[in-house]
Amino acid sequence: MQLRFSPLTLELRHAFTLAASSRTTTPAMLVELEHDGLTGYGEAAMPPYLGDTQSTATAFFGCLNASRWTDPFRTEEILAEIDALVPGNTAAKAALDIALHDWIGKKLGLPLHKLWGLDAARAPVTSFTIGIATPEIVRQKTREAEPYHMLKVKLGRDTDQQLIETIREITDKPLLVDANQGWTDREDALRMSEWLAARGVVLIEQPFAKTALDDTAWLRERSPLPLIADESAQRLTDVARLRGVFDGINIKLMKCTGLREAHRMITAARALEMKVMLGCMTETSCAISAAAQLAPLADWADLDGALLITNDPFDGATFDNGRILPSARPGIGVRRRVTS
Amino acid sequence: MQLRFSPLTLELRHAFTLAASSRTTTPAMLVELEHDGLTGYGEAAMPPYLGDTQSTATAFFGCLNASRWTDPFRTEEILAEIDALVPGNTAAKAALDIALHDWIGKKLGLPLHKLWGLDAARAPVTSFTIGIATPEIVRQKTREAEPYHMLKVKLGRDTDQQLIETIREITDKPLLVDANQGWTDREDALRMSEWLAARGVVLIEQPFAKTALDDTAWLRERSPLPLIADESAQRLTDVARLRGVFDGINIKLMKCTGLREAHRMITAARALEMKVMLGCMTETSCAISAAAQLAPLADWADLDGALLITNDPFDGATFDNGRILPSARPGIGVRRRVTS
Repeated sequence: MQLRFSPLTLELRHAFTLAASSRTTTPAMLVELEHDGLTGYGEAAMPPYLGDTQSTATAFFGCLNASRWTDPFRTEEILAEIDALVPGNTAAKAALDIALHDWIGKKLGLPLHKLWGLDAARAPVTSFTIGIATPEIVRQKTREAEPYHMLKVKLGRDTDQQLIETIREITDKPLLVDANQGWTDREDALRMSEWLAARGVVLIEQPFAKTALDDTAWLRERSPLPLIADESAQRLTDVARLRGVFDGINIKLMKCTGLREAHRMITAARALEMKVMLGCMTETSCAISAAAQLAPLADWADLDGALLITNDPFDGATFDNGRILPSARPGIGVRRRVTS
Repeated sequence: MQLRFSPLTLELRHAFTLAASSRTTTPAMLVELEHDGLTGYGEAAMPPYLGDTQSTATAFFGCLNASRWTDPFRTEEILAEIDALVPGNTAAKAALDIALHDWIGKKLGLPLHKLWGLDAARAPVTSFTIGIATPEIVRQKTREAEPYHMLKVKLGRDTDQQLIETIREITDKPLLVDANQGWTDREDALRMSEWLAARGVVLIEQPFAKTALDDTAWLRERSPLPLIADESAQRLTDVARLRGVFDGINIKLMKCTGLREAHRMITAARALEMKVMLGCMTETSCAISAAAQLAPLADWADLDGALLITNDPFDGATFDNGRILPSARPGIGVRRRVTS
């Protein structure tokens, strides 16, 4: 196979504000794997807090010898080799996994969800994120989110409750909240989860620090809302020890090295009777469309990443009445947009 | 799709002797799923102790309306519907799962292992079972098993140690032993496992009754040999509670309803850091070749079922220097033998 890669800076539709930072762009890398006249597309999305950068990804891709992979169907072997090269670089690894799966789907003429035996119509409602902002902007964003039937908010400021109340002035749509490891006190966390439950919140992501499993298990025993692991659940090997600690896991391709491991994490979660959420970074329709192919296996989808940028080079997965629909085109199902 | 099914009585090469019984034939059902000009083959193998019979399978197949399945690729939906129809009937369900996967592989022109991203060359050495018999016959069978690099014995008689010693007169090949739930006393079990370890045995299957998980966990703490669940591990939902009790699971298509769930059980076992053995019943090359497609994911294969019968209607998976090789033909990779 032949590997090509290039950096891409994604332009954010709205400045992205977390507890500690604010930014207007986010780095990504696009990847192409070509073999036998077909090209598979992949993407690495690299939000700064994950550690990967365009430089580390470039270095990683540069040390691969893709010409050694003469049979793209040998995903088990190829992806194990890629994963073993260096620790980390999970986003760059995911880009290769996505491109490889895209190639296979194109070769077979099948969208990946069909190759995996799934029914596209089973994909769940996806949430749309309302960023942290002034009450006026929050009201406006909530109104603009009209096409989406579930909203998500990231907590982590002393105005968290005001943010929820402001959204509730406009809509009673179900809400997901992401505490982003921000909570530290058990009793406060329990009170907050009760307060959130009373306001139509349906789940809480990552309430405590990723290693604070005792605190999380304590809260889970008492919380009226299910707790979903994000930072605590990076790879397949993390899943088993989260049983009894979290009610489910948020799987993101960029954390777990791609579709193959994501698929396995879903299976592991089911075997452990845990719930599954499919999440994303801010990323193009390339990585989003890849994740969407797995969506029929998830309980919740949070795949709004491509809606948050203004320079998406692809189209692929679409939204229908609040649901994310995996593309019916082969592979991950993306096409390059005609640049205007 | 169109479903056809017919009973087949498999003729055993040697009478099959367990602690409690002896028999010269074993019942099976062959299944065909036809759609779009292609036919997928499947098989249900029904050893008497599992409860399924040709009558129960006939009744089960009879109540299916296969013409409703207009898209064979929707395996998730079709197999969930089949599984939900009645409890049990796992062998009949496996026959349909195998036929459906065979059809998909044929439609795509790919052997299943390739569709799953696997390298056929990674399939492990398979064991060959030496039945319970007089020392003279055991010596003869052990010599006849020369092509196989690993042997398996089923225990459960007061002559167990003699059986092992007799095999050891002939060969020092690694041995798997299947205690078939036969042990009842912890201390005796520990002494036996030490005795077996000293004689080149590499694992013990199902030492205690399938529900005796406390005894098993006790033994596992002390045994020099890994313990593998057979009767304790039927379906995906059994796997998680076996962690810390067994070191691994023996997955058989006829127990777990087929390839889809078997694949998931392997993934779950890996997520739980457990070992994987792929086993079989006495069955034709149809079901064996289906299981062989998964073999590159297993630590041990015990897929000698088709070698134990004289009227195998198929050829498919082959053996190469003691390894089982999944067929490179599409689907499960079987062809009907020309009847002489």
